[in-house]
Amino acid sequence: MSIGQSIPRVDAWEKVSGRAKYTDDLVDRNALTAKVLHSTIANGLVKKIDTGEAEKIPGVVKIITCFDVPDFPYPTAGHPWSTDPSHRDPMDRRLLNKRVRFYGDDIAAVIAEDEISASRALRAIKVEYEEYSVILSPEDAMKDGASILHEECPGNILKHTSVEDGDFEAAIKEEGLLCFEGVYETPIVQHCHIETVTSWAYMENDRIVIYSSTQIPHILRRIVAQALGLPWGNVRIIKPYIGGGFGNKQDSLYEPLNAFLCTKIGGRLVKLELSREEVFCATRVRHAEKIFLKSWVRHDGRLVARSYKALSNQGAYGSHGHGIAAKGTNAFRQLYNDEKARKTEIFTVYTNTATAGAMRGYGTPQAVFAIESHIEDIARNMNIDPLEFRFLNMMPVGYVDPFTKNVNRFDSLRQCVEAGRVQIKWDEKRKRYAKQSGNVRRGVGMSLFWYNTAVWPISIEISSCRILLNQDGSVQIQLAETEIGQGADTVFAQMAAHTLGIPWQKVHVISTQDTDITPFGLGAYGSRQTYVGGAAVHKAAGMLKEKILTLAAEYVRKPVSDLDVVDGNIVQISHNNEKLVSLEELAIDTLYHIEHAEHLTAEVTAQVKSNAFSLGCAFAEVEVDIPLGKVTLLEMVNCHDCGTLINPKTAEGQVHGGMSMAIGFGMFEQMLYVPKTGKLLNGNLLDYKLPTILDHPRLQAHFIENHEPTSPYGTKALGEPPTVPGASAIRNAVLHATGVAVNSIPLSPHLLFTEFKKAGLI
Amino acid sequence: MSIGQSIPRVDAWEKVSGRAKYTDDLVDRNALTAKVLHSTIANGLVKKIDTGEAEKIPGVVKIITCFDVPDFPYPTAGHPWSTDPSHRDPMDRRLLNKRVRFYGDDIAAVIAEDEISASRALRAIKVEYEEYSVILSPEDAMKDGASILHEECPGNILKHTSVEDGDFEAAIKEEGLLCFEGVYETPIVQHCHIETVTSWAYMENDRIVIYSSTQIPHILRRIVAQALGLPWGNVRIIKPYIGGGFGNKQDSLYEPLNAFLCTKIGGRLVKLELSREEVFCATRVRHAEKIFLKSWVRHDGRLVARSYKALSNQGAYGSHGHGIAAKGTNAFRQLYNDEKARKTEIFTVYTNTATAGAMRGYGTPQAVFAIESHIEDIARNMNIDPLEFRFLNMMPVGYVDPFTKNVNRFDSLRQCVEAGRVQIKWDEKRKRYAKQSGNVRRGVGMSLFWYNTAVWPISIEISSCRILLNQDGSVQIQLAETEIGQGADTVFAQMAAHTLGIPWQKVHVISTQDTDITPFGLGAYGSRQTYVGGAAVHKAAGMLKEKILTLAAEYVRKPVSDLDVVDGNIVQISHNNEKLVSLEELAIDTLYHIEHAEHLTAEVTAQVKSNAFSLGCAFAEVEVDIPLGKVTLLEMVNCHDCGTLINPKTAEGQVHGGMSMAIGFGMFEQMLYVPKTGKLLNGNLLDYKLPTILDHPRLQAHFIENHEPTSPYGTKALGEPPTVPGASAIRNAVLHATGVAVNSIPLSPHLLFTEFKKAGLI
Repeated sequence: MSIGQSIPRVDAWEKVSGRAKYTDDLVDRNALTAKVLHSTIANGLVKKIDTGEAEKIPGVVKIITCFDVPDFPYPTAGHPWSTDPSHRDPMDRRLLNKRVRFYGDDIAAVIAEDEISASRALRAIKVEYEEYSVILSPEDAMKDGASILHEECPGNILKHTSVEDGDFEAAIKEEGLLCFEGVYETPIVQHCHIETVTSWAYMENDRIVIYSSTQIPHILRRIVAQALGLPWGNVRIIKPYIGGGFGNKQDSLYEPLNAFLCTKIGGRLVKLELSREEVFCATRVRHAEKIFLKSWVRHDGRLVARSYKALSNQGAYGSHGHGIAAKGTNAFRQLYNDEKARKTEIFTVYTNTATAGAMRGYGTPQAVFAIESHIEDIARNMNIDPLEFRFLNMMPVGYVDPFTKNVNRFDSLRQCVEAGRVQIKWDEKRKRYAKQSGNVRRGVGMSLFWYNTAVWPISIEISSCRILLNQDGSVQIQLAETEIGQGADTVFAQMAAHTLGIPWQKVHVISTQDTDITPFGLGAYGSRQTYVGGAAVHKAAGMLKEKILTLAAEYVRKPVSDLDVVDGNIVQISHNNEKLVSLEELAIDTLYHIEHAEHLTAEVTAQVKSNAFSLGCAFAEVEVDIPLGKVTLLEMVNCHDCGTLINPKTAEGQVHGGMSMAIGFGMFEQMLYVPKTGKLLNGNLLDYKLPTILDHPRLQAHFIENHEPTSPYGTKALGEPPTVPGASAIRNAVLHATGVAVNSIPLSPHLLFTEFKKAGLI
Repeated sequence: MSIGQSIPRVDAWEKVSGRAKYTDDLVDRNALTAKVLHSTIANGLVKKIDTGEAEKIPGVVKIITCFDVPDFPYPTAGHPWSTDPSHRDPMDRRLLNKRVRFYGDDIAAVIAEDEISASRALRAIKVEYEEYSVILSPEDAMKDGASILHEECPGNILKHTSVEDGDFEAAIKEEGLLCFEGVYETPIVQHCHIETVTSWAYMENDRIVIYSSTQIPHILRRIVAQALGLPWGNVRIIKPYIGGGFGNKQDSLYEPLNAFLCTKIGGRLVKLELSREEVFCATRVRHAEKIFLKSWVRHDGRLVARSYKALSNQGAYGSHGHGIAAKGTNAFRQLYNDEKARKTEIFTVYTNTATAGAMRGYGTPQAVFAIESHIEDIARNMNIDPLEFRFLNMMPVGYVDPFTKNVNRFDSLRQCVEAGRVQIKWDEKRKRYAKQSGNVRRGVGMSLFWYNTAVWPISIEISSCRILLNQDGSVQIQLAETEIGQGADTVFAQMAAHTLGIPWQKVHVISTQDTDITPFGLGAYGSRQTYVGGAAVHKAAGMLKEKILTLAAEYVRKPVSDLDVVDGNIVQISHNNEKLVSLEELAIDTLYHIEHAEHLTAEVTAQVKSNAFSLGCAFAEVEVDIPLGKVTLLEMVNCHDCGTLINPKTAEGQVHGGMSMAIGFGMFEQMLYVPKTGKLLNGNLLDYKLPTILDHPRLQAHFIENHEPTSPYGTKALGEPPTVPGASAIRNAVLHATGVAVNSIPLSPHLLFTEFKKAGLI
């Protein structure tokens, strides 16, 4: 039984020994180098590009400008294609852009024999622009007279939606309701995966092969083909080990341009590797959101009605677009239960900042920061215990979401809160810190979170899996659900071993995806791996086991119904699982049988048409040095109901990583733009303040394992949820410590100084 | 309809542009280098190896000697495993050998940072031997008192078999029979593939990954595991493009040693690339055979009984062993029909020459040289037209082989002879050259050949194929039947296109085999690709088409029985194949269907339990300069019935290549050993006389296309047969020109001078 065991990661040896090969490790030594010329204005038009001097530089092979690329608008978001045009992502990209929409936009590319020649050529290219004034916020973008970034979107509004449940106007007229209001702001942050964005491409006959550090090989294939106007089968994507993605690589980034460049030089191998600085300014970021919340509450603490309005900063291009803000409204609508009505209105708005895309949590860290800050403020203002207030209003057991049909089957939120409460010694600390004075004060805070698993019914959820039986009873498994550092391969091995009845050491996971060979799947996003990929593993392993037992029945001359595979042996159930023959012996007999030789394999697509709430909370304890505006995080506990744990150790790792990202989001990280020019001020790992190990307390992960019935292995989302509640838990702990409700993150000294001063503490 | 079209090779672009990546092109730049220390005696024992000085050389990482390797005897021949131990290949190899059995045997290996350090270390190793006298021929090896190379084989006889059909002793007593006798000898020759023997290996966790220039990835996996004593699934073989193999790479060569070496340095990447000289002396060669023929013939020319005895020189190790001589007896027993009886006796004997293994033709070039020289001599002596003599005695239409159950369905031999006769202007030239005098004379000669297709029922014949449908209606096909230069991938693409009803351009063949991923198959040998691999393609493509039509029926709401796929479109049969929907549209609908999304793939194993005669002949015209002992080949025609041609152009290429090899075998090539030391004299491409382009006349290939009913595409063997009849056709042409019957090849000036002198011509 491999499920529930903390087996070592299947890629541990490769990765700790430094032998694991990443995209850049695999490139041929003769590869050409491509570099991108980024615009030095944030908003405007390229009038002219003079490449004359650049082309004279020795080593330069070819220069392509925005005047040389085909006019195939394409989407970049890593979602499966939809046969319904209204479900498709915004198609607003070109390979290079004449219309410049952010400082760093791609306007030309140089292919050279080496990096130095390419860099010299970039500097020698002369560009003439027509410049417009810079727009950095949705509010500015929506103003009359603001320049329009994409003609098809008047007012720069990519999308605007509003939904009302119940009769909102009637609900808020109930007598005696208290009304609370708050405006919450979250910053633009970047994923900061270790491996930068890298790809290389060459042609094989009339087909293009691209090695890329991507989360979504099969989706990327389709997007590259769209961008270049090719049949989709003419593109082949290969994904080696990857040094993190966090959603940035759930987008088509520079692969289409890389592919196009190689076609312009007869299919020669070209590598396009971004610097860290380019990753910051020109890939994807988390949408900054400004969220306006208003709640109507009875004196007993019951929420009667709420409204939620968000302005989501899309940046320059469409990418994942409105889905991010929309997912935030799901958190709003489902985490708490309004007795009568609720209303949401969201705007996704183009600006001249970096393109916002997918990032771990996918809109929920922003929404939950707002929601849980607001809930805390209400409870505090009403003098109700914040846990009791939440218990009173949170999504009740048995809730069925009318759209997704998700059922809230378990009392997960309460169970998680109770576990975290004990872990962090909540009751004792709430009391102990209730009355403090002096410059340094402590506080505890917490936050619920809401997440769901995978993306049905927003788009299809499928995964295909293939399993091949070897002569020694071991197997290979292949699926397109990518290992991106999260440990997917390890849990797939455990799942396959479990269903097949073999030791996990006998499962070899094919970690490299190759769209020519790997069964079709969607990749890594939406915390879908164990839920959707798991369904495919379960189905394929079940098919293979059935084939094995059918052949075993013939071999041992016993009925199939009396046979099972246990620990790599065919056993007889009625005889106390007595071993009849090893799987090895059966596999050899089957493969080399003189009458009916067969290579036993199974391949199948699993389609998942359900979804599952993945709920929980975070608790944080802080010490605040008021004059310094400095928060020190003393303790942090995350509690998750992600269903049955396949591998407790790697699950804990997932939670730790997510908590770390939440700490960065809540306390440190923020991309800053120069207002006048739109130039990114801190797009590097020195000036952009990622939390370091010194900023981390001991991270504690706690699990409630309610076996999820819609999942073959009882699992649900764990990859993203840990990122969600941390910022609001810390913010609420600071509130507890200081009495000051700060409505923006990160809680930087700069911001806290201002807030504490405003509150009279300094 | 892709069948029968001379489409360009699917790998043409890659290969002519120089972009195709071979094993050595793919190795990481940080690979270590391994080099083998070869013995400098041919027969004896290694008493002691002193590596002290060698280990001190900078750059040397590790030295492994024959005293350091595990004692797992393993086979090397590239045959599928058999569950019947009596069908397994001789297991007489160790990774390195204390008992030295040929000059160049592997006794130690050096791993170093670079080639120079490795070479220096080889020279610094000191070896002490105990030396025995050298055995170069089976006759010497079988003598009393000869030293025994392998303890388990007394008399150095690896295997001895004899078979009698009919009552031989009674048959030859018939009155009035003429008796003819001859002894024929063929040389040791080498394959001389362009790419030398190369592999590299590293470990991934506890598994070994080997890239190798091999014909037989799946078989090699099993052999490497056996040699190292590992579970078979712990070995992964990857086969890139290959620069020829011709049967040498149907053996496990240095891959097991390469794998073992990498395990001794913690799994680091080690490359082991042989020099040309090492390939000559230490890989595989064609078995030299000495064949004793005796025939009893009636005055009307009818063969009554014949006997065949062969001594086959196995060289130092077992490799393909007795199968080679045995296949020769099949040619003997089936090519001509003895009215009453026949008898065969064959000995496969170890000697101190290079290990003999598989080589294009697999024993039939030797046998057919003897048989067809002998037949020619009989006809000449009896003054019967050699064609008429053959027509009278050759395998009749309707013949059923009692062992293989092969049926001779067509009059292929006669059809081929008649075609070649016209092509070369046989009748005219036979007459014209009948009476010549002077130093320079011309002649025409011919030879039949016999071959069969694949290896059933000697061992199992299976091939698995997987096909994946892309969204644009194109497919990938995968099978383990390797492209080794022969054009297999191209015909597989044509076959799949034909069966699926799509253009061949839409079939992408996965040319690289990877035993972790590629469906199980046996590789390239036995001219089995179109016959066995074709059966797998046919079955898998049929399965996929059935799935497509089932979904199409739902999509277009017509009965399946009225639908077909033609040129990439679903068409309605009853409406004159009117297009209903494109396969592209259907594929997209299927893959992204909101209710039943599915990645359409098909994977299946085909087992072939038949075999097919592949028959034909060669005609040659020569000019002989008697005093110089020099033969110039003026014209050569090969005629083949290999069933339906899939690709006439690549078929012609196959025949040209085989004819060239036959020319070398008949006229130039021969590995020469120093009698006393057993050292190879001419193991390099300067001293070993491969025919050059100047030695080739215009090669003419002619085909008789009798559609083979046991094959899904009507094909049978073509890869090897062209190599078979050339030598005897040339020898018979020399006989025609000079009246001298030379019974050994190659027809070198040295030999011809001796023979012409003996015959009184000089």
